[in-house]
Amino acid sequence: MATAGKVIKCKAAVAWEPNKPLVIEDIEVAPPQANEVRIKIVATGVCRTDLNHLLGMHKKGFPAILGHEGAGMVESVGPGVTEFQPGDKVIPLTISQCKECRFCKSPKTNQCEKGWASNRYDLMAAEDSRFTCKGKKVLQFLGTSTFSQYTVINQIAVAKIDPAAPLDKVCLLGCGVCTGFGAAVNTAKVEPGSTCAVFGLGAVGLAAVMGCKAAGAKRIIAVDINPEKFEKAKVFGASEFVNPKDHSKPISQVLSEMTNGGVDYSLECVGNVGVMRSALESCMNAWGVSVLVGWTEVGDITARPIQLIAGRTWKGSMFGGFKSKDGVPEMVKAYLDKKVKLDEFITHKMTLDQVNDAIELMKHSKCIRTVLSVSPN
Amino acid sequence: MATAGKVIKCKAAVAWEPNKPLVIEDIEVAPPQANEVRIKIVATGVCRTDLNHLLGMHKKGFPAILGHEGAGMVESVGPGVTEFQPGDKVIPLTISQCKECRFCKSPKTNQCEKGWASNRYDLMAAEDSRFTCKGKKVLQFLGTSTFSQYTVINQIAVAKIDPAAPLDKVCLLGCGVCTGFGAAVNTAKVEPGSTCAVFGLGAVGLAAVMGCKAAGAKRIIAVDINPEKFEKAKVFGASEFVNPKDHSKPISQVLSEMTNGGVDYSLECVGNVGVMRSALESCMNAWGVSVLVGWTEVGDITARPIQLIAGRTWKGSMFGGFKSKDGVPEMVKAYLDKKVKLDEFITHKMTLDQVNDAIELMKHSKCIRTVLSVSPN
Repeated sequence: MATAGKVIKCKAAVAWEPNKPLVIEDIEVAPPQANEVRIKIVATGVCRTDLNHLLGMHKKGFPAILGHEGAGMVESVGPGVTEFQPGDKVIPLTISQCKECRFCKSPKTNQCEKGWASNRYDLMAAEDSRFTCKGKKVLQFLGTSTFSQYTVINQIAVAKIDPAAPLDKVCLLGCGVCTGFGAAVNTAKVEPGSTCAVFGLGAVGLAAVMGCKAAGAKRIIAVDINPEKFEKAKVFGASEFVNPKDHSKPISQVLSEMTNGGVDYSLECVGNVGVMRSALESCMNAWGVSVLVGWTEVGDITARPIQLIAGRTWKGSMFGGFKSKDGVPEMVKAYLDKKVKLDEFITHKMTLDQVNDAIELMKHSKCIRTVLSVSPN
Repeated sequence: MATAGKVIKCKAAVAWEPNKPLVIEDIEVAPPQANEVRIKIVATGVCRTDLNHLLGMHKKGFPAILGHEGAGMVESVGPGVTEFQPGDKVIPLTISQCKECRFCKSPKTNQCEKGWASNRYDLMAAEDSRFTCKGKKVLQFLGTSTFSQYTVINQIAVAKIDPAAPLDKVCLLGCGVCTGFGAAVNTAKVEPGSTCAVFGLGAVGLAAVMGCKAAGAKRIIAVDINPEKFEKAKVFGASEFVNPKDHSKPISQVLSEMTNGGVDYSLECVGNVGVMRSALESCMNAWGVSVLVGWTEVGDITARPIQLIAGRTWKGSMFGGFKSKDGVPEMVKAYLDKKVKLDEFITHKMTLDQVNDAIELMKHSKCIRTVLSVSPN
């Protein structure tokens, strides 16, 4: 490419400070260094984690370029990169997979020790960002920053996907859909014929419903305080709907009565410690498995000891338990083979310069997913 | 037997009220009704759960006959009992196994729905007790009441064991040893070569150490605030000892530094919600499994959501996950085959009339297990 080895000037949505709208800016993206890949982002989803950052959960994390649910094409590669070539379709990964560390070598986890070491899960060190705007270094968010037309990522956090994949759809596999789907399939390990409850019907929750369905669950009870969500949940496989606001009893008791003692699996896709407790309590005491999928740093999870001693298991899931470089291409293939739905998550399509409108929709729960067109494909 | 079909008069230690010494009384034990077995208790361990009851955790549960870790011989059987005959050696079970309910038919749990239904896990209904003392009905504790020379138990809660078994040893398999051993082997499913931490070195904790060793753990770190416990823990397989009082850092940090990021499995054998949190936090974030073994009804367990989301699993174990009628005879056989230690738990031997002395020893942590001789063998 003509741009290889040169600084690229392009558009990006920059978060200059907490609680303020993003600003579309002209930025400079330096060439990839050793083991890095420079990617033209074609499309990106807007996820609640982006919003959480903007709401000031990490006050020191500014200025930054948000966005972490994207898809694009390799523009150029740095020294030492042999796996990728310009033109490859790729998905940036918030969880890396170096394939060399003790975590990557273990079948028990999808964490990567190199990822933890470089603190990819929050904000990377300023020296690892290739972004500059108005002479200032701009931080990279979750190791990805997909609200930019170009980004530079270490090859351990980039998945090469099928050239036939439509980037404005499969971008959702960069975060929400894999997170929910995998939580059911990989973490809870939902069994055929089982009864499941999914708390919270945002994109992650709907993907969890889809995961339960794919795993062969017989009953999938969708739980949300917004009854409008149920129609969408049915599309993904939900068989029943419960609105906690319709009941004076605790929701765990409602579910227990509906299921003769509790569900086999429950998945919390809200990110609220009170709901996490309800989800645990909604499980069958003798063998129920409850999985935390929603993210929160507010408060502690709590439960009575007997709730575990009686036989429940409490787990958590990050990126759906998928080993990222292996799992994402498989999920792309499953989409191309029509085994996984993606189009049905997309309620809005916009362009990068409308990113603040997309964030407002999400703030007010008016969308499932908005996909932004970032660069012309 | 000459006593079959008749009321038996015998000795028992009766708990008349909370926080008072037990009183050795002459009691009457009615004949077994349908599906019941009357058992001569030969020996019994004294377990902390007996003490907890005495300390008034259940104020309505008096008068009662405590004791639930016993072994004896069948004296007579009620109508419909074909599995047992007079003279059979047996161990009373606090968790039943009816082999017919959905729990018993599932490999995922050792609970028995019939047991829950009859509330065996606390105090059975007065009409289900065959004990009378001074004209008053005396309650049966945990469905067993082994501080009596005779007791009557439903056949779903009695395990027939090898005739060669020494009852004054295998009685410990009625509760504490199976609870700890099974928590490691059945619930945590400790893997060969792994690193484990056991919190609390009472009989249950020592049995958990033995379970980790039997499962092939490479490092077994014993944690207790009483350094005198370590010598005993070594006998059961502990490789290292940590006294939280020797460190200013949190114990989870100490263990994390000793193990390059945390242990693979941790077992809480104290029954304290603060220790339960420490045990969880001591696990490797990516795949650690922490099991609640100790029992408490005081307080909630608490943790930060990320501690599970990162990859830890939080479970609990009751009676070590053993299906009771199947598991106890297997553990008796393992003892006879010298694959499981029991003698090493027994620090004191007494007779039933010394039961209050045994309770005092336990209150002041001066014993591992005291075994009481109840009836002449």
